[in-house]
Amino acid sequence: MTGAAVPGGWVLGVDSGGTGVRVALARDGVVLGERRMPVAVRTSASGIDAAAMLDLVLPAAADLIGGAGAGPLTAAAMGAAGMVSLGDGLRAAVPRALGEAFGARVVALAGDAVTAYAGALGNRSGAVVAAGTGLIALGTDLRGPWRRVDGWGHLLGDCGSGAWIGRAGLEAAMRAHDGRRGGSKPLLAALEAVFGPAASMPGRLYPRADRPAVLASFVPEVARCAAEGDPVAADVLERAAGHIADAAAAACPPGQDRAVACTGGVFGIGEPLLRPFREELARLCPRARVVAAEGDPLLGAVRIASALADGTLRLPVEEPLLTVTAQPDTGGRTSTGGR
Amino acid sequence: MTGAAVPGGWVLGVDSGGTGVRVALARDGVVLGERRMPVAVRTSASGIDAAAMLDLVLPAAADLIGGAGAGPLTAAAMGAAGMVSLGDGLRAAVPRALGEAFGARVVALAGDAVTAYAGALGNRSGAVVAAGTGLIALGTDLRGPWRRVDGWGHLLGDCGSGAWIGRAGLEAAMRAHDGRRGGSKPLLAALEAVFGPAASMPGRLYPRADRPAVLASFVPEVARCAAEGDPVAADVLERAAGHIADAAAAACPPGQDRAVACTGGVFGIGEPLLRPFREELARLCPRARVVAAEGDPLLGAVRIASALADGTLRLPVEEPLLTVTAQPDTGGRTSTGGR
Repeated sequence: MTGAAVPGGWVLGVDSGGTGVRVALARDGVVLGERRMPVAVRTSASGIDAAAMLDLVLPAAADLIGGAGAGPLTAAAMGAAGMVSLGDGLRAAVPRALGEAFGARVVALAGDAVTAYAGALGNRSGAVVAAGTGLIALGTDLRGPWRRVDGWGHLLGDCGSGAWIGRAGLEAAMRAHDGRRGGSKPLLAALEAVFGPAASMPGRLYPRADRPAVLASFVPEVARCAAEGDPVAADVLERAAGHIADAAAAACPPGQDRAVACTGGVFGIGEPLLRPFREELARLCPRARVVAAEGDPLLGAVRIASALADGTLRLPVEEPLLTVTAQPDTGGRTSTGGR
Repeated sequence: MTGAAVPGGWVLGVDSGGTGVRVALARDGVVLGERRMPVAVRTSASGIDAAAMLDLVLPAAADLIGGAGAGPLTAAAMGAAGMVSLGDGLRAAVPRALGEAFGARVVALAGDAVTAYAGALGNRSGAVVAAGTGLIALGTDLRGPWRRVDGWGHLLGDCGSGAWIGRAGLEAAMRAHDGRRGGSKPLLAALEAVFGPAASMPGRLYPRADRPAVLASFVPEVARCAAEGDPVAADVLERAAGHIADAAAAACPPGQDRAVACTGGVFGIGEPLLRPFREELARLCPRARVVAAEGDPLLGAVRIASALADGTLRLPVEEPLLTVTAQPDTGGRTSTGGR
């Protein structure tokens, strides 16, 4: 059936993050195939490289569509790290490219927090905290705009993120090196095992362009030291949990029994982080109910595309978090941006 | 007496910081003239630009020496921000240049914390906390090596510094913007008055190379909000005071009745910072006695040069904090670096 037109329903989802790009083809809400390219798309201060993104996505999508014998796409959705602040190039190029290549009539471009939300909760109201190297929380009651909380980067916020936890652990190590209050000898030993002599640490961190990632790379050591009984490392995790609860509570929409889901690598720390997070969130925001995420951001992109295809999207369309572009040359509506 | 040889005693002091370079000529401990060039010496990841430093210092020194009718220098000392981690070029070039130009027989190169120490306490044992954009504490009992504490930069430490206070204030502002716990509406209003809309703050901070200075530029707003009764801003200052006390306590040498001096722009905040600092230091380190700094880092450089000239230097000579180089071609000892 390769190349044959199939009426309606074929959708494409794309998820682009720091470790690579994934593309999925779906129909009637069922993912029929997936490709993973372990290459991060180039991102500079001037934006995400749209040409590099399309060079990865278009062949993978063509491969999936050809392999499935799929017809023209009804809709597509792409979530990307950096979309909110650095996505102008993607917003300008991707909808037309997917329309021209695969006939996609409507294309959504979303921040990775929005695809994380859609993957975790789908079309439900609630809040999602995405905590990896950075941290952002998004909430919605499906009526007003997104409730966006934090995501301000490692100097202004991202409180409780991987960069936050790693930074706090490294500070505690340097305090032990100095003989200052609040130091941790186990964290100092971990720093020296990972990075070398403590006094050389500034030279290993500050010249790097990816300082937040370097900070976050220390999270496993903080988690290990906490698990082995170091009270300073355990306190770092407890404080991180409090910050994550702060973000979840602020993002959680008013109402009763609101679902709150957690996604991202930081939650891989497990109970030493999750237990104090649940306890603090219950105190701050009794209406929140912590639920497991249903799926990942790639599923979220597929869900957004599917909801666009059948007209059931309830998540707030609000530039730059979530932009929807219909293709004028394929008979769709012509609209961009917020409701 | 221009150009005439005067036996012994003429010394040169240099202080280089973020706002410019100062040069002083002294004899018998008395400063006879001073020049100030409001130009910061270029500093990159590869080091402080030694040629640019000498282009500023040599003409000013020649001017001072000529004006005073001074003979050859007995000794010179230069303190510079960045000397400890980025001073290899200065250590290679400055002693010979000052020897060739002015006959300086012995030249000291010091981190700005060492000249701050010498300016504040001279040849006495004790500790000095220097808190500007960054924060470092140095202590000595005049027998062992320097007790160096913090100075690890804005991600690993510099706890209680201008960058630390400004960053904490900006985080509290963004918390208020998000509706998170720990936010301060007065700090949010201050952020928006200084930088513009809160959501644009990441774009105003992260692309800058001088992020610590941008963070520290918010200190006056934190101090003002605290003075006007904002409890969040006051708490930022109290926590900063605690961190500064931590650093002073760790740097303070063992013994009785040790002098601890505070230098740097952060202490311009005054009692809202100094009161909790003194209280916390008294708890942590009862042997510490807070004293006023006698002078500034330029006086410190002059004092180090004078002490080298008359053989009375008691501060630890320890690379890279304090390096002393004697000129072989002027009959002096040939030595570089630590004792």
